[in-house]
Amino acid sequence: MIIAVDAMGGDNAPFQVVKGVYEAAQGLKDVEIALIGDENKINDCFNELEAVKPENVKIIHTEVYVTMEDDPMVVMKEKNNSSIAVGLKALKEGAVDAFVSAGSTGALHAASTLIVRKIKGVRRSAIASVLPFGNGLLMLDSGANPTVTADLLLQWAVIGSAYMKKVFGIENPRVGLLNNGTEEHKGTPLAQEAYALLKARTDINFIGNVESRELPNGPCDVLVTDGFTGNITIKLIEGMGKLVFSRLKKMFTVNLKTKLSYLFMKKELKKLKKDFDSSEYGGAVLLGLAKPVIKAHGSSKSKEIKNTIYQAVEYASSGIIEEVSKELLAEAK
Amino acid sequence: MIIAVDAMGGDNAPFQVVKGVYEAAQGLKDVEIALIGDENKINDCFNELEAVKPENVKIIHTEVYVTMEDDPMVVMKEKNNSSIAVGLKALKEGAVDAFVSAGSTGALHAASTLIVRKIKGVRRSAIASVLPFGNGLLMLDSGANPTVTADLLLQWAVIGSAYMKKVFGIENPRVGLLNNGTEEHKGTPLAQEAYALLKARTDINFIGNVESRELPNGPCDVLVTDGFTGNITIKLIEGMGKLVFSRLKKMFTVNLKTKLSYLFMKKELKKLKKDFDSSEYGGAVLLGLAKPVIKAHGSSKSKEIKNTIYQAVEYASSGIIEEVSKELLAEAK
Repeated sequence: MIIAVDAMGGDNAPFQVVKGVYEAAQGLKDVEIALIGDENKINDCFNELEAVKPENVKIIHTEVYVTMEDDPMVVMKEKNNSSIAVGLKALKEGAVDAFVSAGSTGALHAASTLIVRKIKGVRRSAIASVLPFGNGLLMLDSGANPTVTADLLLQWAVIGSAYMKKVFGIENPRVGLLNNGTEEHKGTPLAQEAYALLKARTDINFIGNVESRELPNGPCDVLVTDGFTGNITIKLIEGMGKLVFSRLKKMFTVNLKTKLSYLFMKKELKKLKKDFDSSEYGGAVLLGLAKPVIKAHGSSKSKEIKNTIYQAVEYASSGIIEEVSKELLAEAK
Repeated sequence: MIIAVDAMGGDNAPFQVVKGVYEAAQGLKDVEIALIGDENKINDCFNELEAVKPENVKIIHTEVYVTMEDDPMVVMKEKNNSSIAVGLKALKEGAVDAFVSAGSTGALHAASTLIVRKIKGVRRSAIASVLPFGNGLLMLDSGANPTVTADLLLQWAVIGSAYMKKVFGIENPRVGLLNNGTEEHKGTPLAQEAYALLKARTDINFIGNVESRELPNGPCDVLVTDGFTGNITIKLIEGMGKLVFSRLKKMFTVNLKTKLSYLFMKKELKKLKKDFDSSEYGGAVLLGLAKPVIKAHGSSKSKEIKNTIYQAVEYASSGIIEEVSKELLAEAK
């Protein structure tokens, strides 16, 4: 198995990406990792790490890369030899088995849809993020598609269930619909229509509407919503988390007694921070694509890059895409 | 000025409502408070309080009240002599100047729209809630209208600005549009259209799109959004707050040292809890109605009821409704 990694994407590229790849390569002896980016810069990183490039890491050289300022469509136009484009083309052609990037979500999603294409029958791919609630709660879409249709939400429920089953090992994943009330008639016409479609399906474990207030209790394993609401949700969780920790930090520096308390509470605070950190669950998966593409957090350090590579291996060997393809083909007949 | 209060609405009615009214009546000697509900039960509460009903409190007797299980439309049909209906009718007829209820939001909003009616020119009224961020951030709509139009968001921006100016004393309230990115072109077609309308207005201080991640930093004073997204937002903030405090509670009971830390941190923790508590800002205002209606939190205790009565006095004497009416009339010409 070969996992391609965008060496140039993310706030801490290329150093933290190369470091993460180096760490992953130690543990994944049977996996080959293709680092895509500027060969000189990548080698500089190995030098800085005082490490020799492992045998199962190879470099695919390109000097071009997409920046956060670039328009998402630039990958297809002016930068079609960028690290993202090169990686996705290799994936499309079967030269590699999965692609990981911490670069621009918009660019990665746009280019993936055009280069890698979607599973036959899937109308639109979604960004599936794991919220740090319960045992990890997969929310899709978290931002790629601001407007959706009810049958799209249904497709994502099916694909999300397959993912949580195969990658998270959850037997009968509970599917929830994010809504502004628990009753069946609640919400927008879209939500009402989606409720009816989801309820009618026997191959998913639909538990009904889920209110955002309940999310921290982990009420479901898969949460479907439009990309607008999903984006508001995921960013609010992030913002609230930041607020809490900046407030806690201040609280513990008020006087000598609170400073002493900090020492007593340090271990517990660390645990709390970890529980609020969705990067513990790896990156966001672009579900619905015909090949595995994973978006690592933009702020990823080596640990997250390493985790995301492990996640890519898991995903690529799970058979989810083949399974969903078959299901959708059977439905179409 | 006479403020009518629904004695029978909310999780802790009638006792906490009566207690709150009793407390408010002490401070508001020039204001009369009309308690609407079962006279016997209300008098029982005064007995339990070992208090004499203040001279500026009168009781309007009715034995009927709306429960949380009732369909919102029941107020208009079977329960048109319920405490909510009686209060709203008194408001409509000018017998009282404002109405406060901690009862069912849906019922209160539905009945208000039908009995009190909207300001001439306002297409739909919104539930305006104060989020506990910055100096208080007024978000509308927080749940009454799951689907909206762009010009509705514009109207709410105008009314919300007037409210924050007159009641919160903010000179030039900053108006933000909740969106999934800060750039002008971001979001759904609705968000894009609303952006253009808001930008074109010179009488409001529109600062552009606001991402949910920024909300805890108080990026604006008035935040407009559809009632679906607003509801997801407000409930997520509530749920995250609960999660944090339940986790903190556990953290401080791990061992002797953490228990000692709790004693050292008690004051700071109390402050933190207060900062996360939106009930500190009073109730949610039904903006766009032709008369002041305020929804107190369902879980209100006497303190919140008292605060909400003060808020009602402020609102009723602010002249906001007259001002907005004039503006809308001028626009219509």
